[in-house]
Amino acid sequence: MVRIEKVHYKPVPVRSLLLEMKDLSELMIDLAYSAALFHDQKLAEEVLELEEHVDSLAYLLGMNAMLAARDAKDAEALIGVSKVAAATDKISDAAADLAMIVLRDVGIHPIIREAFRRVEERLARVRVKSNSVLAGKKLKELELASRIGVDIIAIKRRGRWIINPNGDDRIEADDVLIARGAPSGVKSLKRLAWGAAQNLEG
Amino acid sequence: MVRIEKVHYKPVPVRSLLLEMKDLSELMIDLAYSAALFHDQKLAEEVLELEEHVDSLAYLLGMNAMLAARDAKDAEALIGVSKVAAATDKISDAAADLAMIVLRDVGIHPIIREAFRRVEERLARVRVKSNSVLAGKKLKELELASRIGVDIIAIKRRGRWIINPNGDDRIEADDVLIARGAPSGVKSLKRLAWGAAQNLEG
Repeated sequence: MVRIEKVHYKPVPVRSLLLEMKDLSELMIDLAYSAALFHDQKLAEEVLELEEHVDSLAYLLGMNAMLAARDAKDAEALIGVSKVAAATDKISDAAADLAMIVLRDVGIHPIIREAFRRVEERLARVRVKSNSVLAGKKLKELELASRIGVDIIAIKRRGRWIINPNGDDRIEADDVLIARGAPSGVKSLKRLAWGAAQNLEG
Repeated sequence: MVRIEKVHYKPVPVRSLLLEMKDLSELMIDLAYSAALFHDQKLAEEVLELEEHVDSLAYLLGMNAMLAARDAKDAEALIGVSKVAAATDKISDAAADLAMIVLRDVGIHPIIREAFRRVEERLARVRVKSNSVLAGKKLKELELASRIGVDIIAIKRRGRWIINPNGDDRIEADDVLIARGAPSGVKSLKRLAWGAAQNLEG
């Protein structure tokens, strides 16, 4: 169930709030597409939780922007920032709407799959075999982004999703990865996860 | 000025309407970012026009979906499609909101530029020199997508924007291109446009 976070004022730089909102909203769109394409209700629920979180960030950003503005010049400079924040909030709402289609279980019509065809080329869902070179390694050791141009955006382990993992997160055998990247990189990742390729250089 | 298109029923396949809405809404986000990053008010106006167009497509899709549903089963299958259409409409609204920041001329605060930093890596604005290998060629001859992994999403020629050009559109000397792709592809395109590289294979 989605839990509504209570929002209390905290001093957080507007800069870091906007950056987090921007990155999360983009991530959410790809996670929502993934939930639809790979029929994953748990992942759809994660998108709804992220939407609540982005909403909380929007409240915090609003409060911090108000306190940061001391004169008309500040207010003029900051209004654009608050408008960009509102646009990222709208994008995260759209992602939540997509996730709700999965949760309402109305089915993914072939027309939807066709509309997502280009998305499908840049997203992959793959299970890590025990003989994979990825198993047991931290993301920062693997450097998948620079080596094969792929970002791991979510990891499913024993039924739970780790969203937007960081460099210290480790890939384990039997993990399910959701990855985003160019079609060639996505293919390389699959071969690495299956144990069909051992060479990280592509 | 934005012109509101009148909407009359036309028989158009729901499939092609959804595909167009999906592709345009993604394109619009990148065009809106480009308008902000490259301070281009004309490009921002193009985004607002596209938003009106996506809105018209949403009306048409709604009407065609209604007529396509003959029984409860059809209606259940199509409701997901109409929800995806609504989500793409919301994304196009968000793009229009971003474009409005440029048109209201409140300035792009350094915080916004920082939030867009990853966007900036995958977008380029470049002018085509007369000695460039690109000048005089059709997009379908150049095959930039398969060769260097870059899509040309807009071309500015004599003050007017050509949005989402197709394969038969030709690049001319002195055109300004907005391109989207991986950072390495974007760099290659710049070198080709400047005449600093002549080899299309990378």
